[in-house]
Amino acid sequence: MNNLDKNININFRKVRKHKFTVKEYVAGILSQNITILSRAITLIESNLSSDQEIAGEIIEGCLPYSGNSCRIGITGVPGVGKSTFIETFGTYLAKLGRKLAVLAIDPSSQQSKGSILGDKTRMELLSANKNVYIRPSPTSGTLGGVARTTRETIILCEAAGFDTIFIETVGVGQSETAVSSLVDFFMLLMLSGAGDELQGIKRGIMELADAIIITKADADNIIKAKIAKQQYKQALHLFPPKKNGYIPKVMTASAIENIGISEIWDTILDFFKTVQENNYFVTNRKEQIIHWLHETIIEKLKSDFYKDSERMKEIKSLEKKAVEGQISPFRAANKIINCKL
Amino acid sequence: MNNLDKNININFRKVRKHKFTVKEYVAGILSQNITILSRAITLIESNLSSDQEIAGEIIEGCLPYSGNSCRIGITGVPGVGKSTFIETFGTYLAKLGRKLAVLAIDPSSQQSKGSILGDKTRMELLSANKNVYIRPSPTSGTLGGVARTTRETIILCEAAGFDTIFIETVGVGQSETAVSSLVDFFMLLMLSGAGDELQGIKRGIMELADAIIITKADADNIIKAKIAKQQYKQALHLFPPKKNGYIPKVMTASAIENIGISEIWDTILDFFKTVQENNYFVTNRKEQIIHWLHETIIEKLKSDFYKDSERMKEIKSLEKKAVEGQISPFRAANKIINCKL
Repeated sequence: MNNLDKNININFRKVRKHKFTVKEYVAGILSQNITILSRAITLIESNLSSDQEIAGEIIEGCLPYSGNSCRIGITGVPGVGKSTFIETFGTYLAKLGRKLAVLAIDPSSQQSKGSILGDKTRMELLSANKNVYIRPSPTSGTLGGVARTTRETIILCEAAGFDTIFIETVGVGQSETAVSSLVDFFMLLMLSGAGDELQGIKRGIMELADAIIITKADADNIIKAKIAKQQYKQALHLFPPKKNGYIPKVMTASAIENIGISEIWDTILDFFKTVQENNYFVTNRKEQIIHWLHETIIEKLKSDFYKDSERMKEIKSLEKKAVEGQISPFRAANKIINCKL
Repeated sequence: MNNLDKNININFRKVRKHKFTVKEYVAGILSQNITILSRAITLIESNLSSDQEIAGEIIEGCLPYSGNSCRIGITGVPGVGKSTFIETFGTYLAKLGRKLAVLAIDPSSQQSKGSILGDKTRMELLSANKNVYIRPSPTSGTLGGVARTTRETIILCEAAGFDTIFIETVGVGQSETAVSSLVDFFMLLMLSGAGDELQGIKRGIMELADAIIITKADADNIIKAKIAKQQYKQALHLFPPKKNGYIPKVMTASAIENIGISEIWDTILDFFKTVQENNYFVTNRKEQIIHWLHETIIEKLKSDFYKDSERMKEIKSLEKKAVEGQISPFRAANKIINCKL
């Protein structure tokens, strides 16, 4: 053991609030220390620029050790049985020897001021599993911010040896397009009462899915679930083929009865085989990096532009004029852009 | 007749290249002079800032007389029979006494350096109809630019008395989301060979549609078209309800045999009745104005930011580093933003 390692080991044993160096953080993450990992993620989520500076360096230290995981997006409205599904599916994967991290994107918690996702108490069995790390969703932040946080958390989790990452989200907001730009495989959970207005899934999400899972396909529900499966299969058949060359699968599952769970994992493995063979896996990850780079630039340009209160007054006044038909929206926009502050 | 009117009438008879004043343009458009209308649209499409200045004033003059039309988006891939459909449908509307303007959004013509849409020779009968104005698509410009051009052209056409506006587009690019933000009613033309990879319609478009029309439903095709109609109806049933409270219709039509044409118009009238009653019509038009105002701001911020060649070099170099895993895309973006030129 060299000096560095010894120091780190000593530091790990120190009090919880000890300030680690970047090196200690990186070494801690690589040696799969979950406390260090969690604290590093907290730095990523912090709004303090000093924290963000350290977080950036930790991420850079972890980047060379990242990338080796199956990144899987799981979405579905509340009531679809997402927690139960993740508990059963995650437990199955852990038994197979996989190391699973469960993260959540939930910008809606901005409004509710509390996270409805990532709550460990929802998934008691899973959170007690030593192969599984559940990270509650950050309770605040813009969609862009949460996406950044999540993507950087993925990097750290991968460096900490997690080979399977779940990104969980509710399919009612705008977060799904963001999630689909963070993951390799996107899974949509649906109830058999398809078309039901209560389902509340956002339009456009279905077309992002690599797989649709009809949940709660047990007891009295089996026949209904089978009919729904058939309907979704037909509907997906009407869509043009996906860019990844993969035909989305529709499957039924019961998390409570443990039915259809292994088949879902087989499907995912089959997907990864396909996209690795046709090179979409690598291309897509590269495109995602470029996407987030420019997405971040644009977000920053926007937030810088809109943060000025004088300009916002001008914008509100011109919005009103445009809506009243006194000025075209394009001319109004140009006035705002050219307005000197 | 007052002095102004007399002057304008004299000016109208002058040579084609006479420079009209803004007043003359507006008066010409309001008196439904098609030559003046066309020349004003050319100003809208011009890249010269002097032309754009005049165009802006003409639009402002026309705005109080605009808004009173049914704005209808029509999309479908080449081969779906779009021209034939518009010819038959437009002729039907003209017979009903409606005044129709046919515009096109076709940013793909950037590549082909020629417009594949809006070509008057495609719609001979219709272009000869005195109640119909066909404006070929501008042959260059970004999607944002073409959307602006089209929206402002709608304003002028409405001021010139057109009560029905078709916005035509091919459903293969990104223009459909733009079009759906320009129109009240969005119509998707599809062939009965649904699910066929050759169909090439872009994913996500189907969910924008207020109506799907299965074209070429005649002769040997009738049964196939009816089956397709049933399939699309089922598929749409699986989607969540649209924001406008309207359940999208699926219909079959034959432009050549003139079958199903009046039914489509009845459907559209029924749609307008619904959205006027539930107030979505007004809300949506207001939202569209706000949408385009901010869309224009963001486009301008982006183009200003990316037009610097030194910065572009820096971006390319950081893109490469990010793809190679040397830096996170978010940190790379921040470096670019903070880079002083």
